[in-house]
Amino acid sequence: MSADIVQLVPNRTPSLEPMMQLVAADLNHVNAVILERMQSEVALIPELAGHLIAGGGKRMRPMLTLASAALLDYSGTRHHKLAAAVEFIHTATLLHDDVVDGSGLRRGKRTANIIWGNPASVLVGDFLFSRSFELMVEDGSLKVLRILSRASSVIAEGEVDQLTAQRRVETGEDHYLEIIQAKTAALFAAACRISAVVAERGEAAERALDAYGRNLGIAFQLIDDAIDYASDAETMGKGVGDDFRDGKVTLPVILAYARGTDSERAFWRAAMAGERASDADLDEATLLLRSSGALDDTLNRARLFGQRAIDALGPFAAGRAKAALVEAVEFAVARAY
Amino acid sequence: MSADIVQLVPNRTPSLEPMMQLVAADLNHVNAVILERMQSEVALIPELAGHLIAGGGKRMRPMLTLASAALLDYSGTRHHKLAAAVEFIHTATLLHDDVVDGSGLRRGKRTANIIWGNPASVLVGDFLFSRSFELMVEDGSLKVLRILSRASSVIAEGEVDQLTAQRRVETGEDHYLEIIQAKTAALFAAACRISAVVAERGEAAERALDAYGRNLGIAFQLIDDAIDYASDAETMGKGVGDDFRDGKVTLPVILAYARGTDSERAFWRAAMAGERASDADLDEATLLLRSSGALDDTLNRARLFGQRAIDALGPFAAGRAKAALVEAVEFAVARAY
Repeated sequence: MSADIVQLVPNRTPSLEPMMQLVAADLNHVNAVILERMQSEVALIPELAGHLIAGGGKRMRPMLTLASAALLDYSGTRHHKLAAAVEFIHTATLLHDDVVDGSGLRRGKRTANIIWGNPASVLVGDFLFSRSFELMVEDGSLKVLRILSRASSVIAEGEVDQLTAQRRVETGEDHYLEIIQAKTAALFAAACRISAVVAERGEAAERALDAYGRNLGIAFQLIDDAIDYASDAETMGKGVGDDFRDGKVTLPVILAYARGTDSERAFWRAAMAGERASDADLDEATLLLRSSGALDDTLNRARLFGQRAIDALGPFAAGRAKAALVEAVEFAVARAY
Repeated sequence: MSADIVQLVPNRTPSLEPMMQLVAADLNHVNAVILERMQSEVALIPELAGHLIAGGGKRMRPMLTLASAALLDYSGTRHHKLAAAVEFIHTATLLHDDVVDGSGLRRGKRTANIIWGNPASVLVGDFLFSRSFELMVEDGSLKVLRILSRASSVIAEGEVDQLTAQRRVETGEDHYLEIIQAKTAALFAAACRISAVVAERGEAAERALDAYGRNLGIAFQLIDDAIDYASDAETMGKGVGDDFRDGKVTLPVILAYARGTDSERAFWRAAMAGERASDADLDEATLLLRSSGALDDTLNRARLFGQRAIDALGPFAAGRAKAALVEAVEFAVARAY
């Protein structure tokens, strides 16, 4: 390992392309595992799981497992099953999230709960979650099992925490960061960390990759939060303003509320309580988010966490894999521009 | 081990008491683990989980783990964490089942989904499920992890299978037995089997305890199915006729449909389709189940599986633990008398 400095100053449009090219061959193996292991004699399972798994996801988390392994010059194949396990955990949480939120649209397609109903989405989520543990058991590393079972608990805790915080506009920024660290960043961190375990590169490499994934995950979520107010439905593949209408108190809202006048705060309280959910209300909200600087500062925070993710890679030698991981961060934080 | 023959001819009212006495001290340890490990800084988690976990369940599955360990003269403490893991898996499936079925009553209490809503029930179920894997990882046996992760997948498959079969009165008996083998018996089997792993008693003991638990689980479910038509709400602690009103095609209905006249079959089709769900319809259904012998024969099938469970214990030496496991079967099949 050698220290080198990478600046987060993209002089071109950053893209996931370098990471996709880096892991392309491995990702084919992962996709084969995913397709094979989502099968069941109960036909509804592959039908429903396939809808989401084949439905245009970027495979961000398994790609991170593969790219992290490449960073460590890992030459085995164990990471294929484990990357599939990570994607199964992610897919299970998406299925349950859509039930919890009553979502109707994801990645531009109707959600599974709309097509097959909530019961099927809950149960197929449970199946994929169980299957992910079967894959980890087949791999046989108790350390990997520990990392991913812990991440799964933390994700569920974060989801319940967010449920509790829902519609509570007085949620603080620190509390909110805890929530997204749990519900989003924990799996990013675990996805990266397990490659250091498989490559047997020791605790320091594990911690560095964990920090990379965790900070990237936070940045990723903050950008998602901003996009919900700053983009249009076509670009983001889900309904714009969903968070607003669901009363989801995300960082843009937290900052705007903190900075707001009395009447603005009254607006946010009413909006998060579900009493201001029209298109005009959404326009009003977006205006407040822009004028208060809340949206810009959410992006600034995201960039900060992105920078921390990149800095966490400091100990690793420069090269194609590291460049790809750096550009993945730049891509993540550039999505809202 | 010595072979001995035990007949399923209770000459007294069988009870769970011998098993409860056998495992009482161990069960205290298990309850301590359960209470400790369902905690979270997110207050809603212990609140919701505690409602169900403290809510009068018999701890049937963890008791089976403990009694199986006693049968094998296991003297360690590893089974405490694992029995807690089994109970967490069971609790998670109950939480999700109640969401899937829209149930309002369980064990005589309002269900968690009614009190806290479906989203919280889904997510706390996910948390308990993850927590169960954390407990297994702490124990450190990959074999136990394999058995319980496999059981979890099979349970979810069985639940989806049942969802698919719901309201389909033409579901065959064999298909139905597959469903309950998956959704109910797989966890009974795993709960017993893991004690043979922990006690390091070899593949034959594992298989025997697996068979005991599996057959007991099938008997248990069939009796539950019969009780839904043969008992009253006070005795069973859930609404009588719930299966009927939910259009759940259970063995009593399958047998009555198979044996019915054209007009009786028309009644069952309408009933399972949800078009005959009044109290009078339930009375009519119960009458048909009795006159066709469907209810009696469901109980007869349950007794047969109960006998198979007892016979599976053949290889084990007679003694207090074996007598308790035998009586647990007798208790299970006697519940509907």
